[in-house]
Amino acid sequence: MRETMSPENKSVSLHDAVKLLLEADDIYLLCHQYPDGDTLGSAAALYLGLRQKGKRVSIRCGDPIPQKYDYMFEGIEFPDFEPQFICAVDIADPQLLGQRLSPYAQRVDLCIDHHGSNTKYARQYVIRPEAASTTEIMYDLLFTMEAEITSQIADCIYTGITTDTGCFRYTNATSRTYIVAAHMMDKGADAAMINRVMFDTKSRARLEIERRVLDTMSFYFGGKCAVAYVTREMVRQSGANDEDMDGIAALPRQVEGVEIGVTMREKEDGSFKISVRTGPKVNASKICAEFGGGGHPGAAGCVLTGGVTGAKHQILSAVQKVFEKQENS
Amino acid sequence: MRETMSPENKSVSLHDAVKLLLEADDIYLLCHQYPDGDTLGSAAALYLGLRQKGKRVSIRCGDPIPQKYDYMFEGIEFPDFEPQFICAVDIADPQLLGQRLSPYAQRVDLCIDHHGSNTKYARQYVIRPEAASTTEIMYDLLFTMEAEITSQIADCIYTGITTDTGCFRYTNATSRTYIVAAHMMDKGADAAMINRVMFDTKSRARLEIERRVLDTMSFYFGGKCAVAYVTREMVRQSGANDEDMDGIAALPRQVEGVEIGVTMREKEDGSFKISVRTGPKVNASKICAEFGGGGHPGAAGCVLTGGVTGAKHQILSAVQKVFEKQENS
Repeated sequence: MRETMSPENKSVSLHDAVKLLLEADDIYLLCHQYPDGDTLGSAAALYLGLRQKGKRVSIRCGDPIPQKYDYMFEGIEFPDFEPQFICAVDIADPQLLGQRLSPYAQRVDLCIDHHGSNTKYARQYVIRPEAASTTEIMYDLLFTMEAEITSQIADCIYTGITTDTGCFRYTNATSRTYIVAAHMMDKGADAAMINRVMFDTKSRARLEIERRVLDTMSFYFGGKCAVAYVTREMVRQSGANDEDMDGIAALPRQVEGVEIGVTMREKEDGSFKISVRTGPKVNASKICAEFGGGGHPGAAGCVLTGGVTGAKHQILSAVQKVFEKQENS
Repeated sequence: MRETMSPENKSVSLHDAVKLLLEADDIYLLCHQYPDGDTLGSAAALYLGLRQKGKRVSIRCGDPIPQKYDYMFEGIEFPDFEPQFICAVDIADPQLLGQRLSPYAQRVDLCIDHHGSNTKYARQYVIRPEAASTTEIMYDLLFTMEAEITSQIADCIYTGITTDTGCFRYTNATSRTYIVAAHMMDKGADAAMINRVMFDTKSRARLEIERRVLDTMSFYFGGKCAVAYVTREMVRQSGANDEDMDGIAALPRQVEGVEIGVTMREKEDGSFKISVRTGPKVNASKICAEFGGGGHPGAAGCVLTGGVTGAKHQILSAVQKVFEKQENS
């Protein structure tokens, strides 16, 4: 979609972004597909702020909004109208709009986002990669807009922060992130409830699949590598859906002493999607690159064939090389 | 130990507490037994502050300090000397000193604590129940003392905050807690590392016992109640120690839809320690009171006999009454 980036597209200040929104009406706020706490929290917070200013607004998302976010959407309506102004929140690339919202891909007037990888597809954009979440930017925007931060808006902004920082566990949380969170607490955000719903609640199906995955976990190289797998049959038996599978890839790496955690998930065609998670000493991306995959230094992926045994054998060979290199250096 | 509370014991201001510390020397800092991130973080932070002021200080704890807290104790020594001043941190009752430190129980000059239940056993005390952690008070104390907040002190203070708020998940975290955390981030606290070590790392034994406990989990009353159990044999097979068992009681309640989560842990004498965790609609303490136990509205305990089957039967009868009452109200 790089062709959507035209020379007229430009970065604007928060002040100008607010001006654009306040001059507009009949506004669509677009969320990305597989919506998370940040895209939904940003959209809901902005919706509530714009409604305070008397605007007609509607939130649009290509996928259904998971029930666990209901508390952010109390009183929010989703009217259908022909939008005069389109604002995308937390969307790095128009492809992430998904099939249903793709007609709007070329028509985004304003994008508010914290992804450094944003393709600058919107006519005007505010991109702040130093923000831990898009709601952290939304906090500034609503402040600039002189919107009243209600407890519902506080919940929305806090939600984006906590979900995008993994409950303050990722390195993207800065002192400013905590300051914004503090302000949201003052405005009535129910952080305990939000974090409980986002991080401490497991569906029955999730419990079932986790139990099964833990049963497959094996340790290698003196406990420095752990490998677990998930077959389609295991997923079927547990009744797990895609949402239930979220974070499963992190489990092997969470065991004390494990430097390389591997999760192998069987795909439709019988091949395995390999997820590698590593500690600071090992580059996951390099391991996966050997098999045509890639990712970040701490989290990467690739695809392998040969069944559980064959796939595991291949990935363990690559892991062995890493540890041999470590010993020799 | 109520008899240790004498009429001369008194609450002092933070300023006076600092004065006492700065006028003293040869100071022992006492931690509670089964030490956690807050008692250790408070002691280490205060130790480092007092060392800056040229004091001879030593930290004393009745139990060994778990390895995962090593980053707080870099460069900290544990000299033996006859203390001239004894300060207890995060210790609500002298009984929590444990056997080894019990000789100091009657001799505590100053206590810094955030437990509202503190028995005021120390000659002078600063007790602030509104603080989420004792390190949150220690932040003010070190500020008053004009100590330099090094990155190591920042790690200590952050650690107490995050461990005592369950990584910001409990209701005790206030806006001020976030403000202090923000300041610690500015001072170089490695929050991502700390939260990973405290919350995302499981020992092999913990993994084993968790796997076994999950296998025992049964659901009742349309999924509104979940019961799991742990026998001594299961603990033995997994190699789990007390630390590994921490938080196991929370597992049943974490399943979506569960309002009453029950964990039954077999004791030495074959009876079962029952832990009940409930959602906002159910009072756990009332359920346990029926069997001579007690606790908080959300978390309570009691002891039952009759083996797994007998204990489970009794607790399920009490749970049934709760749900019947709910339906009738």
